[in-house]
Amino acid sequence: MAYKSDIEIAREAQKKPIQEIGAKIGIDGEALLPYGHDKAKVSQDFINSVQSKKNGKLILVTAINPTPAGEGKTTTTVGLGDGLNRIGKNAMVCIREASLGPNFGMKGGAAGGGMAQVVPMEEMNLHFTGDFHAITSAHSLLSAMIDNHIYWGNELEIDVRRVQWRRVVDMNDRALRQITCSLGGVANGFPREAGFDITVASEVMAILCLAKDLEDLQKRLGDMIVAYRRDRSPVYCRDIKADGAMTVLLKDAMQPNLVQTLENNPAFVHGGPFANIAHGCNSVIATTTALKLADYVVTEAGFGADLGAEKFLNIKCRKAGLSPDAVVLVATVRAMKMNGGVAKADLGDENVDAVKKGCPNLGRHIENLKSFGVPVVVAINHFVTDTDAEVQAVKDYVTEHGSEAIVSRHWELGSEGSADLAMRVAEIADSGKSQFSPIYPDDMSLFEKIETIAKRIYRADEVLADKKIRDQLKLWEEQGYGNLPVCMAKTQYSFSTDPNLRGAPTGHSVPVREVRLSAGAGFVVVVCGEIMTMPGLPRHPAAESIMLNADGQIEGLF
Amino acid sequence: MAYKSDIEIAREAQKKPIQEIGAKIGIDGEALLPYGHDKAKVSQDFINSVQSKKNGKLILVTAINPTPAGEGKTTTTVGLGDGLNRIGKNAMVCIREASLGPNFGMKGGAAGGGMAQVVPMEEMNLHFTGDFHAITSAHSLLSAMIDNHIYWGNELEIDVRRVQWRRVVDMNDRALRQITCSLGGVANGFPREAGFDITVASEVMAILCLAKDLEDLQKRLGDMIVAYRRDRSPVYCRDIKADGAMTVLLKDAMQPNLVQTLENNPAFVHGGPFANIAHGCNSVIATTTALKLADYVVTEAGFGADLGAEKFLNIKCRKAGLSPDAVVLVATVRAMKMNGGVAKADLGDENVDAVKKGCPNLGRHIENLKSFGVPVVVAINHFVTDTDAEVQAVKDYVTEHGSEAIVSRHWELGSEGSADLAMRVAEIADSGKSQFSPIYPDDMSLFEKIETIAKRIYRADEVLADKKIRDQLKLWEEQGYGNLPVCMAKTQYSFSTDPNLRGAPTGHSVPVREVRLSAGAGFVVVVCGEIMTMPGLPRHPAAESIMLNADGQIEGLF
Repeated sequence: MAYKSDIEIAREAQKKPIQEIGAKIGIDGEALLPYGHDKAKVSQDFINSVQSKKNGKLILVTAINPTPAGEGKTTTTVGLGDGLNRIGKNAMVCIREASLGPNFGMKGGAAGGGMAQVVPMEEMNLHFTGDFHAITSAHSLLSAMIDNHIYWGNELEIDVRRVQWRRVVDMNDRALRQITCSLGGVANGFPREAGFDITVASEVMAILCLAKDLEDLQKRLGDMIVAYRRDRSPVYCRDIKADGAMTVLLKDAMQPNLVQTLENNPAFVHGGPFANIAHGCNSVIATTTALKLADYVVTEAGFGADLGAEKFLNIKCRKAGLSPDAVVLVATVRAMKMNGGVAKADLGDENVDAVKKGCPNLGRHIENLKSFGVPVVVAINHFVTDTDAEVQAVKDYVTEHGSEAIVSRHWELGSEGSADLAMRVAEIADSGKSQFSPIYPDDMSLFEKIETIAKRIYRADEVLADKKIRDQLKLWEEQGYGNLPVCMAKTQYSFSTDPNLRGAPTGHSVPVREVRLSAGAGFVVVVCGEIMTMPGLPRHPAAESIMLNADGQIEGLF
Repeated sequence: MAYKSDIEIAREAQKKPIQEIGAKIGIDGEALLPYGHDKAKVSQDFINSVQSKKNGKLILVTAINPTPAGEGKTTTTVGLGDGLNRIGKNAMVCIREASLGPNFGMKGGAAGGGMAQVVPMEEMNLHFTGDFHAITSAHSLLSAMIDNHIYWGNELEIDVRRVQWRRVVDMNDRALRQITCSLGGVANGFPREAGFDITVASEVMAILCLAKDLEDLQKRLGDMIVAYRRDRSPVYCRDIKADGAMTVLLKDAMQPNLVQTLENNPAFVHGGPFANIAHGCNSVIATTTALKLADYVVTEAGFGADLGAEKFLNIKCRKAGLSPDAVVLVATVRAMKMNGGVAKADLGDENVDAVKKGCPNLGRHIENLKSFGVPVVVAINHFVTDTDAEVQAVKDYVTEHGSEAIVSRHWELGSEGSADLAMRVAEIADSGKSQFSPIYPDDMSLFEKIETIAKRIYRADEVLADKKIRDQLKLWEEQGYGNLPVCMAKTQYSFSTDPNLRGAPTGHSVPVREVRLSAGAGFVVVVCGEIMTMPGLPRHPAAESIMLNADGQIEGLF
């Protein structure tokens, strides 16, 4: 049987006017700021007006460690949302926005797949409602104002060798990773080393996604450390007087974007911080607003549960006062097989032994998630090539490990395929069994927080960090930053820091290469291994074949 | 009497839903893609559907050489549009979009003033509908793809010393004017000198504003020269295969933006190329679409008539097949006084002699405009401090020089103040007296085109250009670019290349410092004197005092 491509399905979507979608969750036309006929921002006045409402149930969708086989986390998030609506629940989906740049590198798309998609897909992968452009602008304004301050006399005594604030662009442009700027003589400033990251790696992005409201946004922007003086004392964004104008530039970007699923159910698509040097979740304002509008809110976190769910729970939930009622852990038979040692080319062949061999990765994630006090259900995101015996092997494994696994066929069938999953997830969320608590307290030392995650989540024996790093952490504690959570940046492919170590490794070490303070976002980034904050384009970028066809449709983007 | 500030007036505007504004000119709701409730893009399908309609009359608003006193060209454009509607005509205004970056340097705003404004003012000076962000993205994609091509083997044999394509950002960031990129080792590419311009200086901006439709847009993007090989042969954007993806990124930006005046009349605000290294007019697609929807279309061109009107007539009208029916030349008593030698601080004192002494600047522009075969009327943009005797002095001068001057009080009174001007302009436009023709033919040599403008418009004795420049022009002629118009880049403050030479100078020389080929936009840029393609921020940027006030309103932007 031949299946349609994601873009073919998306183009055939019977979209309803966004005002109709808004009406489903009680947002009237005046409170929606439309962007075309199928996207809208929700006004701040409306958000303020629903604050006294009761919260709905919060459901997190996370996954096993990603493999090249694909897990379908967003697809399952969307499918579960549609499934809940199908069984008569009032449910919303909250996912992240896509970064523009990477779509021109590898064929991409971050709006689900098959019959479980959010639309308009093309626009979500291009400019959408301009949020990321606003973040680029706000970030760039601060960059320009820092060098401008130095140019006009450097009253703040910034050490030009210690400017921490890099520039950003929403494009994969490796040539900008490391540059020398302000060349060309007196009129252009004082030459110094500088560089660009991709926009989603900006601390402004992380802040936008963690801020409660515009006031909190401006405070956090002001708190960002942009440079140090020769005496190592920090210079803040507030000292540069950029926080007010940045807030003005981000005013609209702070409002959540409403779109719809293929089944015309409401979805917020808002924010998209990197899942390595930031926390990788959609915005707090979207999640908290959705909880006021829907009885069930399904959201997701970046990468596998060891990174994404850990940060969602220890950072986003802690800081926003959120408490998940259920966690759905997505696994696929194909990914289990890859964890069990099967090559991508051989995934089409039935291999129950390999499935069984790969299951410990799943088991470890179940255990970890339970340690946060949240009920866990495994969603087997069904691929049409999965055999019954393979599926049964996963189910059996999960049952043996004290959880339950439910097959979901949303990719193929939409909500008809996810109704069973939805039914069970709603039951669990309604059960009141969740007793969520982060796995470390605020007042633990920064290094102990790192150790807690490394030992309890990654199951490492030890954390390796040289004296310089431990001293830095202590200094931040003395400066009042000790109460912050830590944001781990490591490979998403393994529980360990070695991307090739699949399954459920033990006995490894976690080497900390670097620590960075994101004082505005409110976390300490712990870099374990290489992290890339400015991707490059491949030899043949997808952009080469992206174009408008004769019908004015976009080709090559997906 | 105390007058309200522009922003106070704009905030009190009784805006109508943009659908109502569209309905006035026959655009139905489905053809409007709303951005909020007060802005919308006009769909390409709708634009296609009106092509068989008769064109309305085209009215260009231009001005004397700008002085620090201000001329109010946009204000007069908006006031005249409202005046025409007041006297029962069906009229539209077409103006440019504002660049975001400069608003954070000096207090700015480019939406008219007083009672003659286009709204929503704040948004027009911030992200608006994201057109400039789309241009930045498209430009940045090509930048990244060029360095990426070199990185992966440089099959096109680009000479890295001769990459012509710079990068852009919509921010005043002098530190990026000249940089060294691709530092940091093998993974980051081949180090080379590079630099950033502000987005409005991008050739992509000029192309967007000159392209007839998306097909023409893609062809022009493909035609851009991005680099040269060691043998000096050009490498085109098309060779990099970026033109298709850039067109996709610019798809929405190509659609004109509909907004409204304070008096709820329709206005297109679309495109904004630099008036020095580009042609400085709003988009061809907005102007040609407006001509299908309204009986009178009032538009403007950047800087004074020697630069803006010359390019509007010789470049935009020639290339788009447009023919203006009337030209309105804006002058103010204050600017006449400054041309007559009065300092800004003394402008409040009556000084009829100085007015008379400054008038020759006005007279020269009248003569020049008439040489294009278009009827000219002078609009005296009335300031509340102007005395009757001063106004009469301007009127008398204009009458003596074979034209007519009409006082317009739109700033103070809105359309009530511009009705007389509107009446006369409509009569002239309807008279059929315009016999427009550019002042040089396509088949004249490039150097002779430069000489024609220098001698007939600037009244210079000669053009100075060394052999290297003349040889370059000849080479381009041999390569088939000889039929292009020339785009002059010189100071806007004088007919000459010396910004301090006010009035109506003669006997000067025009030194050509550099020539640049904009093969996609379709003109040869002739640089006479210093031109700035990346502005800097002042010692105390406006951004320092831009913020949201307690009511959520933007302070400090205007």
